[in-house]
Amino acid sequence: MTEQHPVKPRSGHHNLDPHLDRYAARTAGMTASEIRALFAVASRPEVVSLAGGMPNLAALPLDTLSAQVGQTIAEDGLVALQYGSAHGVPALREQICEVMALEGISAHPDDVVVTVGSQMGLDMVTRLFCDPGDVVIAEGPSYVGALGSFAAYQAQVVHVAMDDEGLQPAALKEALVRLEKDGRRVKFLYTIPNFHNPGGVTLAVRRRAEILEICRTHGVLVIEDNPYGLLGFDGQIYPALRSTDPDNVVYLGSFSKTFASGLRVGWVLAPHAVREKLVLAAESATLCPPTLNQLIVSRYLATHDWKGQIKKFQENYRERRDAMLSALEQYLPAGCEWTRPDGGFYVWVTVPEGVDTKAMLPRAVTARVAYASGTGFYADGFGSRQMRLSYCYPTPERITEGVRRLAAVLESEMDLLRTFGTVTRAVSGPQSPQSPSPDTA
Amino acid sequence: MTEQHPVKPRSGHHNLDPHLDRYAARTAGMTASEIRALFAVASRPEVVSLAGGMPNLAALPLDTLSAQVGQTIAEDGLVALQYGSAHGVPALREQICEVMALEGISAHPDDVVVTVGSQMGLDMVTRLFCDPGDVVIAEGPSYVGALGSFAAYQAQVVHVAMDDEGLQPAALKEALVRLEKDGRRVKFLYTIPNFHNPGGVTLAVRRRAEILEICRTHGVLVIEDNPYGLLGFDGQIYPALRSTDPDNVVYLGSFSKTFASGLRVGWVLAPHAVREKLVLAAESATLCPPTLNQLIVSRYLATHDWKGQIKKFQENYRERRDAMLSALEQYLPAGCEWTRPDGGFYVWVTVPEGVDTKAMLPRAVTARVAYASGTGFYADGFGSRQMRLSYCYPTPERITEGVRRLAAVLESEMDLLRTFGTVTRAVSGPQSPQSPSPDTA
Repeated sequence: MTEQHPVKPRSGHHNLDPHLDRYAARTAGMTASEIRALFAVASRPEVVSLAGGMPNLAALPLDTLSAQVGQTIAEDGLVALQYGSAHGVPALREQICEVMALEGISAHPDDVVVTVGSQMGLDMVTRLFCDPGDVVIAEGPSYVGALGSFAAYQAQVVHVAMDDEGLQPAALKEALVRLEKDGRRVKFLYTIPNFHNPGGVTLAVRRRAEILEICRTHGVLVIEDNPYGLLGFDGQIYPALRSTDPDNVVYLGSFSKTFASGLRVGWVLAPHAVREKLVLAAESATLCPPTLNQLIVSRYLATHDWKGQIKKFQENYRERRDAMLSALEQYLPAGCEWTRPDGGFYVWVTVPEGVDTKAMLPRAVTARVAYASGTGFYADGFGSRQMRLSYCYPTPERITEGVRRLAAVLESEMDLLRTFGTVTRAVSGPQSPQSPSPDTA
Repeated sequence: MTEQHPVKPRSGHHNLDPHLDRYAARTAGMTASEIRALFAVASRPEVVSLAGGMPNLAALPLDTLSAQVGQTIAEDGLVALQYGSAHGVPALREQICEVMALEGISAHPDDVVVTVGSQMGLDMVTRLFCDPGDVVIAEGPSYVGALGSFAAYQAQVVHVAMDDEGLQPAALKEALVRLEKDGRRVKFLYTIPNFHNPGGVTLAVRRRAEILEICRTHGVLVIEDNPYGLLGFDGQIYPALRSTDPDNVVYLGSFSKTFASGLRVGWVLAPHAVREKLVLAAESATLCPPTLNQLIVSRYLATHDWKGQIKKFQENYRERRDAMLSALEQYLPAGCEWTRPDGGFYVWVTVPEGVDTKAMLPRAVTARVAYASGTGFYADGFGSRQMRLSYCYPTPERITEGVRRLAAVLESEMDLLRTFGTVTRAVSGPQSPQSPSPDTA
């Protein structure tokens, strides 16, 4: 039993809801994620939050944007404020193809569907493919928002292990063979190949063809989620899975991390037949994505040095990553391990045996530091020895201070553990060799 | 077999999609609506489109809006361009309560969830409540976008008749009793009480308590969709169903018709327990609605004479409604009947026996006028003798010309009918006394 899939409502709560008997079966699985509860706590100014995934927008040129957005309304207002198609604004879809070309993708704008953030793309793809009980393969750990969408469609998530080179092909093959033997219907592999959330690792280039080949052989579609792909700290851009397998990969992209998350502009690039159905699904979900937001992104891409802006973001995040890795090295007690991302927002930390990151969290918040405990990133109760630390938002100084505070909390947990043999009641599921956290380098 | 629920893919198409065996069961029901196909045709400038539902935004003060939106970015850019909560911006939720107070609704901002247009609200409510095979009651005809959402969750729509005073309580009761007897699980009544789309009628005030009572007695939730409620042509505002039954009504609202559809800002007002689950569902669907758009609407409501603006919209649409009703009176052949809306966007026309509006549509487009044939507004194949005419977008002159062209097409159909006894191959489902169109006054 996990946070995502409680078998029954919390006792004492269900009598308060007179609509309880009316909900769909899927609704029973909807409970607040740990991450969500954390956002509220972490917003208190005295707490250093290493929990959230909010991009740092300080580098955006607000004056320029203000003028551009004003112009969009003044010049194109009757279009910007009007309904558009569920498919998305054609000019933007062409520009999106230019963005994806950086990752080696050759695509036709017709096969791009603009969505309300890539979260909506993920939700729509799951809507198209997953019947209740179908299996989705995902890395362990995986993106918490993806687990939410899969749960909403009652798909069952099977995690496959990563190491510091990302998803392990042998473990993927083994899982597929086992699931086939069990007669399970696997619909797709959901993967974040670059600068993984929350793992902080990147799928090695030499593994990519192998992963694609395994999925093809087993008749499994690949959903490639790539919000961080252009945020490599050395300017490196990895070739998208989609670039070599256009017929069996659905690609999810987003401007949330390379421009502005509050606009909610993402996209799906899909094989042609799937794209037609995606547009229909999107139409029933929101009619169309906001036209104004699409025109803002389109004008920004057309008139602004958006690649230069991404470079600024990269530098910004690299500086923060460096601060975090230095602080982890300096402060964290022996026995802790962590990943060393070369892009993106996150470090994945494994703490010594016996420490439970979920149980420890209230004590960390009391010590004025927040993180995301690992269990939220698994659909099956694992992750209690892990935590995700985000370096994207706070200043380097705050990051250092946050890690220092976290280290003190960890030390005190480990002291108690050495003295009494335990510090916490067991509140999370069992560990299993099938779903380890990424190895730490 | 209807447009919404084909039993199998069109022959000759399914071999082209290598992913066909992978789709979820719900995906089989996704086919392009007639309305959607029409948008493309109707966008040709020589065609007078009476088909679409696009609001006429010409009355909006673009210069003022341009300045306001620019200010929003300049002053609040780091908030506007950042992720927000799935619940929505608190200040906007308070303002939404003020808007709803005009309809007699007393609500707490906590129970409002901001959505990406009210279409998303509808989709989320259906997600929460409908398992495959559950029944949704809807007026016959009903909003085509609602039928799309219900189909996406594999709910079955049962239509209940309207007359010129809206949904008929006796017919509703009869349907519920029949469905109970059949052991069916009815989840909610979906209703558009004011200035119905596509029916053009309004639920009589004296029927409202009765409808609510029937739903309570039968344990059926009410989904009240009210995008046009403030667009009464005499400034009349009907009391919302929600105003007298807060525990059993979920209310859907929208700024698409009272401000700007391209911003995609709508909302759901729900009973408290339902609201908590709605936020979770919305989070997995889009993470959060666009922050910028919420701040734009909030600033507009705070600084602009939004009620005066709605009055301008009302005048605009009243002038167009008058043009349409005059033209229908003047040009339409004997035997045609139509509703006389006192608000909203639409007139529902019933043509003489033997004329098939779906089959006639290509000939109408050839004659440079487009409409929405009635079958798109039923989930069960009815509506072939009906059409929806929209007066919201074209100028009064174009509306008159469009109706004149439509009348000529109808005359010619009826001529052929008199001469040969038939004009079309039967392409739509059977008529039934259980799902008549609204009576015409």
